[in-house]
Amino acid sequence: MDQKRIVIIGGGFGGLTAARSLRRADVVLIDRTNHHLFQPLLYQVATAALSPSDIAWPLRTVFRSQRNVRVMMDEVLSIDRADRSICLRESPPVSFDVLIVAPGSRHAYFGHDEWEEFAPGLKTMTDAVRLRQHMLSAFEDAERRLASTGKHEPLTFVIVGGGPTGVELAGALAEIGRKAMGPDFPNLRLDDLCVLLVEGGPRILPGFSPDLSDKAAAALSRMGVTIRLNSLVSAVDKGGVKIGQDFVPSAGIIWAAGNRASGLLDTLKAAHDGAGRVMVNPDLTVPGDPWIFVIGDAAHCRGQDGKALPGLAPVAMQQGRYVAQLIEEGVAPSSRPPFIYADRGMLATIGRAKAVAQIGRFHVSGLLAWLLWCIVHIFFLIGVRSRFRVMSEWIWYYVTFKPGARLLFEQPEPAHRESRGSHRTG
Amino acid sequence: MDQKRIVIIGGGFGGLTAARSLRRADVVLIDRTNHHLFQPLLYQVATAALSPSDIAWPLRTVFRSQRNVRVMMDEVLSIDRADRSICLRESPPVSFDVLIVAPGSRHAYFGHDEWEEFAPGLKTMTDAVRLRQHMLSAFEDAERRLASTGKHEPLTFVIVGGGPTGVELAGALAEIGRKAMGPDFPNLRLDDLCVLLVEGGPRILPGFSPDLSDKAAAALSRMGVTIRLNSLVSAVDKGGVKIGQDFVPSAGIIWAAGNRASGLLDTLKAAHDGAGRVMVNPDLTVPGDPWIFVIGDAAHCRGQDGKALPGLAPVAMQQGRYVAQLIEEGVAPSSRPPFIYADRGMLATIGRAKAVAQIGRFHVSGLLAWLLWCIVHIFFLIGVRSRFRVMSEWIWYYVTFKPGARLLFEQPEPAHRESRGSHRTG
Repeated sequence: MDQKRIVIIGGGFGGLTAARSLRRADVVLIDRTNHHLFQPLLYQVATAALSPSDIAWPLRTVFRSQRNVRVMMDEVLSIDRADRSICLRESPPVSFDVLIVAPGSRHAYFGHDEWEEFAPGLKTMTDAVRLRQHMLSAFEDAERRLASTGKHEPLTFVIVGGGPTGVELAGALAEIGRKAMGPDFPNLRLDDLCVLLVEGGPRILPGFSPDLSDKAAAALSRMGVTIRLNSLVSAVDKGGVKIGQDFVPSAGIIWAAGNRASGLLDTLKAAHDGAGRVMVNPDLTVPGDPWIFVIGDAAHCRGQDGKALPGLAPVAMQQGRYVAQLIEEGVAPSSRPPFIYADRGMLATIGRAKAVAQIGRFHVSGLLAWLLWCIVHIFFLIGVRSRFRVMSEWIWYYVTFKPGARLLFEQPEPAHRESRGSHRTG
Repeated sequence: MDQKRIVIIGGGFGGLTAARSLRRADVVLIDRTNHHLFQPLLYQVATAALSPSDIAWPLRTVFRSQRNVRVMMDEVLSIDRADRSICLRESPPVSFDVLIVAPGSRHAYFGHDEWEEFAPGLKTMTDAVRLRQHMLSAFEDAERRLASTGKHEPLTFVIVGGGPTGVELAGALAEIGRKAMGPDFPNLRLDDLCVLLVEGGPRILPGFSPDLSDKAAAALSRMGVTIRLNSLVSAVDKGGVKIGQDFVPSAGIIWAAGNRASGLLDTLKAAHDGAGRVMVNPDLTVPGDPWIFVIGDAAHCRGQDGKALPGLAPVAMQQGRYVAQLIEEGVAPSSRPPFIYADRGMLATIGRAKAVAQIGRFHVSGLLAWLLWCIVHIFFLIGVRSRFRVMSEWIWYYVTFKPGARLLFEQPEPAHRESRGSHRTG
């Protein structure tokens, strides 16, 4: 076993967990960025509550003391099953004996990829930092416009998709806009801000039970979020979004609807579902190839109810551990137990002291669910430093209502780069 | 006095201090960014020790409880002295009764502005974040190149300018490279990294006394920094820098030499020195205009030794307070005392537990100076949150040697935007 080389594509929840669980094998972990990102808190970076470094960890630091894992920062262009190798953008091809494919997913625009320009999603740190810049600029623009024209025009943010990411973003935007940004912009009135959450189905948080969906919707409404159910977006452009027949002018549109698995999977030449996910065997291998595994939201893996498992961090992490164990123990394909997802429940937060939790038949909402959410998320962060920083930021924000990271960098135009003041304290 | 409108251009140390000191007047503070930046610690953001939000504060938050100050985010294009108004990029002109001009400075390339592209400076948050990306990418590139070619080529960073910023950058780069990055890149050897500090004069830290310059140089040398004195840069391009007759191939070049006051000052049509600084009266006004003040490193103001005051934060802050007092008290031009700078000393840090301090005739170096440096910088940060965060990051780094903010965002190419793993914890 020791001579075999395991290549892992992707340092997300699935790939990272697999690499950490493989303690003996020779592992190469490849990611296009240099960090693992804690995506569940990405919306807090986007809404300026946390800093990027609070929820992301350099992969090299994570594996500093695990010497059997080599980290490569590169982009995988294709997988050659016959040649047992992968092609990279910057480096020569890398061969493998065992391959774990965990490249994740990107947003699905349902055949309208041209909408992405105007309605970006929230998957990477770059997305989050861009969204934050865009949101803060929109407030500055509105303040400036009002100061010079005196005309109140609604500042509308549209969030497309009522899943957990959409709900969390809508809640955070409403909270920041109404409670924290309000006092800072003397010309803007509270009702100048409009946060619109658009969901195609009959209720938000469709993965949760109907009672929790209702509670979440009621909480969002009280916070000033307008929810439009059974509403499909039919067009998106620079100025706004068309919902059914209505055009809604928008200062910002955020896409939180639908996933499409990474395009890299096409090069595997395996059967996939409508969302591009590979139809894996019960042991998460690609049919006909017992040493190529696909995990995380790149895999279409059926749960015990016969439906595809959702794209959740716990699913990816459990799959990473499962695959690592098969590999470390060298389990022959014929004697592998199927992967079974142990569902520990679901959480979604709505705002300060507001969340919903569904743990088996146990449904909670409000402060208790929010505390649970805080504890679970702190627990899953990597390392003492991040836990300490995120916790202290949350406590600070909870007490003062001043989000910590509301910076708007100047536009990167070298010709205008200037600074003010001086640059030394002495 | 109450009806007069005071306009302040620039939210750096000078402008911010003036605005905070003007408690009664109607003040408009204009900055091209939305934040005040604590420039003395900018090199720590550039070298990944601190996060941007640790050392920058949204101006609107700073003035949230000071209702007489209105913050505008905009770029000042010109000052019209005759019309008593300023022109802005995004908004209609703003008129003033009293004007405080504090736009700061940018880097001076001594007539070679084309070098800026290859040798960026470190003045703004955008500069710092870019430099960090560049530095981390250079390490990743070297690791990748070495893994595929097996050839050790020196990874050289050149810092041009041996003032405090250059010294701090050189020390931080050497420290991160040799102590923290080393173990993370298994293929790179410690001596693959070369940090070169180039100074045109006969010693580094020319503002300090010669004994402290020597101590700083010795400390840098022990850390592995190569210092070249009496060396002028004669050419800069993508591949490296020419020092005298030698061409040094470089992975990164950082410009920390020379300042040129903001180009906005030209529109004042006042006499200026060779660095573009306005030659102000002893009361910091523009000759012939007793209600237009120029402060910070945009002003050429003579100290008691007859030399121009240096571009330091304490100078700008004292000038801001002095000007605010003249305005609040409505002191007539003829009865104004001249501005006198109270020199409280100078500090520069070199690395972990290494710094130099010069306070009057009192010269210190080593651990004591470094502790003094830490205390002074923590003290001057704005707000409890920043002090707490920066202090905890320093202690964390001091104990673990793991800088907290070593993130490399993926390149912003929307076509390739993808993420890995899943995006929900439940």
